[in-house]
Amino acid sequence: MQSDQRVRVNGIEYRWPKRPVVAVCIDGGDPAYLARYLSEGAVPNIARCVHEGFAAVADGSMPSFTCPNNMSIITGTPPAVHGISGNFYLDTTTWQPVVMTGPELLRADTVLARFAEAGARVVSITAKDKLRRQLAKGLDVSAGHVSFSSEFADRCTLAENGIESVPQWLGQPVPGMYSMELSLFVLDAGIRLLAERRPDLTYLSLTDWVQHKWAPEAPEARAFYQALDARIGQLMAMDITLALTADHGMSDKSDVAGEPKVIWLQDLIDERLGAGRATVICPITDAFVAHHGALGGFVRVWLRGDLSAREVIASLAGVQGIEVALEREAACRLFELPADREADVVVVACQDTCIGGSQRDHDLSGLAGNRLRTHGGLSEAKVPFILNRPLLPRYRERAAAKPLQSHQLLDFAINGTL
Amino acid sequence: MQSDQRVRVNGIEYRWPKRPVVAVCIDGGDPAYLARYLSEGAVPNIARCVHEGFAAVADGSMPSFTCPNNMSIITGTPPAVHGISGNFYLDTTTWQPVVMTGPELLRADTVLARFAEAGARVVSITAKDKLRRQLAKGLDVSAGHVSFSSEFADRCTLAENGIESVPQWLGQPVPGMYSMELSLFVLDAGIRLLAERRPDLTYLSLTDWVQHKWAPEAPEARAFYQALDARIGQLMAMDITLALTADHGMSDKSDVAGEPKVIWLQDLIDERLGAGRATVICPITDAFVAHHGALGGFVRVWLRGDLSAREVIASLAGVQGIEVALEREAACRLFELPADREADVVVVACQDTCIGGSQRDHDLSGLAGNRLRTHGGLSEAKVPFILNRPLLPRYRERAAAKPLQSHQLLDFAINGTL
Repeated sequence: MQSDQRVRVNGIEYRWPKRPVVAVCIDGGDPAYLARYLSEGAVPNIARCVHEGFAAVADGSMPSFTCPNNMSIITGTPPAVHGISGNFYLDTTTWQPVVMTGPELLRADTVLARFAEAGARVVSITAKDKLRRQLAKGLDVSAGHVSFSSEFADRCTLAENGIESVPQWLGQPVPGMYSMELSLFVLDAGIRLLAERRPDLTYLSLTDWVQHKWAPEAPEARAFYQALDARIGQLMAMDITLALTADHGMSDKSDVAGEPKVIWLQDLIDERLGAGRATVICPITDAFVAHHGALGGFVRVWLRGDLSAREVIASLAGVQGIEVALEREAACRLFELPADREADVVVVACQDTCIGGSQRDHDLSGLAGNRLRTHGGLSEAKVPFILNRPLLPRYRERAAAKPLQSHQLLDFAINGTL
Repeated sequence: MQSDQRVRVNGIEYRWPKRPVVAVCIDGGDPAYLARYLSEGAVPNIARCVHEGFAAVADGSMPSFTCPNNMSIITGTPPAVHGISGNFYLDTTTWQPVVMTGPELLRADTVLARFAEAGARVVSITAKDKLRRQLAKGLDVSAGHVSFSSEFADRCTLAENGIESVPQWLGQPVPGMYSMELSLFVLDAGIRLLAERRPDLTYLSLTDWVQHKWAPEAPEARAFYQALDARIGQLMAMDITLALTADHGMSDKSDVAGEPKVIWLQDLIDERLGAGRATVICPITDAFVAHHGALGGFVRVWLRGDLSAREVIASLAGVQGIEVALEREAACRLFELPADREADVVVVACQDTCIGGSQRDHDLSGLAGNRLRTHGGLSEAKVPFILNRPLLPRYRERAAAKPLQSHQLLDFAINGTL
């Protein structure tokens, strides 16, 4: 490998990093958290990035969910190119929902894997294991790269993860699934690996448990961001290029009484158009639904038999809390989604509302009296886009004259900083 | 007036400008023009702002038309507050379209007028006279303020405009209605007034004739931007705070053969739902339609009799080139529009398509063989947001953590710069 080597990934040419590049994806890191903590002076290291580097709010990918946006960031492309348009989609040959976390569903190369192939040392750590395999697609850990999740930190093997005995090595127990430590473990492990192995490219992806549970004004959320900020400070002290973004934002979707504002779309369509004619899929669904009850701001409707998309859209006209309902083609064009994985109808909720399927299928007991906070819609598609170093002139000009999208983060971090 | 005086306008507190503030609204100034000319090095003064000041792409107001966005900029509010949601709306008591350029329709105070009241000297110059009265609302020209249009530069009186014999004073003839000089005259007059009277606050609003006619690659468009850039340089040399934005962008809406891609919405609705049941209003319409034939990316549909909004929306499902069709309430929520001036249905076109009423009512002969370029939709609602001075820390943090909107321009320019 030479320092003038270039690595081309999905049409973008990346230069060889002058210094290690560390990208942190704050899962659920709505700009509102930073707005509050920056104004309070509570996150001095992130503030230093804002004042000495580059900082803006960018458009994330739609739907504003974890898998699509992580894939957008690490491939540098929108979902229309990389193919991951949700956490779930419906396979209409079997009529079964299919989880979209399989690496075989990812259609674009990742910047991580292409750099690894070119001889760079690469580290990828995520909080929840569901993301890990896609993040590691094409990454040969036998060649010295590292890929693991804090969730399964104690199950790592050299063959599968490029590292083993992680809790012992880090001196921290495996964190609970529902804890802010699950994210902090990711950051601490990244910092330790940076110190020990100085990888060229590190991707650290957190979990949004804190943001689902607490609004910016909650002391618990502030404590999490302060712990995050302390680690940002450690990273900044290590002569790296740091890039900070989020996969999606987070909105409060409860009413004044604290009750979730939900449109039960399957029930509504069944009632208005007849049962069994359409299947609503909530593509936020994952194995960890306690904190959002599988309710998000974006759902998909697949049609059976002779029901038409326009009938469904017409039946939803006037429903409070629906921001927009679109046919497949319009949704794909507007949101840059892959048409072959898109439903017949896409429904997006307003900021204060979420959409579910049938009321009987959603278990909201996990909320345990907390207000429902979730994401998926346009109102949660604005994310921070922060670098610890100033932009090169050419990239300043780009930021001045082209709308900024979070999938450009690695391009800006690797190619665009001083 | 004291230098620590504050002026409160529509909930925002503005400090007294330390030095003259000049805001320039490049009508139709799509970011694509700057993207091209910055990369070519063709606009060195704007580049200097980008590199030494602050520059980003912001969200403009919807619909992406001239009147709503100029009012958003000078009031610091969205159309839901200031009330100007198009160039035209339909008065359903008379069932006649009403031009929205009357100052009585503007519901918010302007920053210009409130500063003038507080003792600041204010100048407002626009290319087309249609905007002038709204821009000057509440501005008492007898108190030394200036307000005129380059279109009617030779008709100015001290009583009406605070200035007279403008062509003689400036040493330039009144420019043609369809010329780039109509914009350059505005800038030259602003520069001259700044030199002679040093007003505290100057608002210069151009015309989009160039952008309607020429794409960024056209030499004519480049020549216009270079002439604009030279004047930006003159302004920057005068110890001012300069703020640069656009009211809207501009998209090519012709096909490969050069024919306009138009949805004739009135004809379509008449055919599908019956004639006389709905009235389509093209709120881009103004007296100067030659360069766009009254075709834009945003139209309004008012319903008569028993036709429902959902029937109209259902009838449009699957029509190529429609990005989204919304009922009044959804449109107002999504785009922050005033409900009492909104139609029953709002229809937004895709970037490559525009929407008209009845084909027989649109005269496209003015295009004279040029490709149709126009605006109004979401694809033309991204605009430059450029300041010649760096932001204060608090405003850097705001830009890092809150989506940037063009109606914040005066707040950033007056309160947010070093």
